[in-house]
Amino acid sequence: MDTPAFQDFYPENVAHCYGCGRLNELGLRIRTRWEGEESVTRFRPRPEHMAVPGYVYGGLIASLVDCHGTGTAAAAMYRQDGRAMDSEPAYRFVTASLQVDYLRPTPLDCELEIRGRVLEIRGRRVTVEATVLADGVLTARGRIVTAQMPDSFTSG
Amino acid sequence: MDTPAFQDFYPENVAHCYGCGRLNELGLRIRTRWEGEESVTRFRPRPEHMAVPGYVYGGLIASLVDCHGTGTAAAAMYRQDGRAMDSEPAYRFVTASLQVDYLRPTPLDCELEIRGRVLEIRGRRVTVEATVLADGVLTARGRIVTAQMPDSFTSG
Repeated sequence: MDTPAFQDFYPENVAHCYGCGRLNELGLRIRTRWEGEESVTRFRPRPEHMAVPGYVYGGLIASLVDCHGTGTAAAAMYRQDGRAMDSEPAYRFVTASLQVDYLRPTPLDCELEIRGRVLEIRGRRVTVEATVLADGVLTARGRIVTAQMPDSFTSG
Repeated sequence: MDTPAFQDFYPENVAHCYGCGRLNELGLRIRTRWEGEESVTRFRPRPEHMAVPGYVYGGLIASLVDCHGTGTAAAAMYRQDGRAMDSEPAYRFVTASLQVDYLRPTPLDCELEIRGRVLEIRGRRVTVEATVLADGVLTARGRIVTAQMPDSFTSG
């Protein structure tokens, strides 16, 4: 059986993100779970996600790191509070800053694994570092500073 | 008449990038031109490119900054050499590192403008800074270090 992912718990009004919203039918719909102290997303790029034939374009890597980071931030807050992810109030994060270092070309025709680790929780901000692996080979590193989504995002 | 964009000069074997390749029919196909000392890309997000309804997801901003940066890097090298962009050998760049700071939510239903400035050309590396404006309002800043594409990318 498929275990629930962090994104399965996003409230409906914040579940349409192109990168991670389960309700965005055209989006990437990444799914992230804890594996011990690390958060893990596995994603298979689409053929069109190329930089040049055979390799992934950088924007996809950035998008995966980004949404992996905001998902990990939410999960980390629930965990810190000792709360289940379906309990209220819901945590949902946006990105304040994103850094990606591209270490080597990322092959297109394989499953990518993004592994995250929480570096810091400070008030409403959570910092996450991530590694991107393609068939087990490290191809990129990321660091993302996230902040709890402001109410103005969803009150419009 | 439409003036040619940097991406119109990419050789065919490196013109399939999801972000900027004119030959990627499913991609974003951004187009970048000089306006004085700055490079400018204008892009209208698709409805599905949302973070939450009404706002752009961070991965799109990162993708635009990324491909805007590699395009600007190529154009900057031709300009430094005093060469036309359709002359040989072709310049084509990949990303070494990408930094994006999200300053405020970027509205979805408007034309985005990415404005780039070359910070440094050093050997095969070009560093570009970029600003992202939505209806003239600054919403994000980026910085991208690019490197000339290694031959291994296109020899496979």
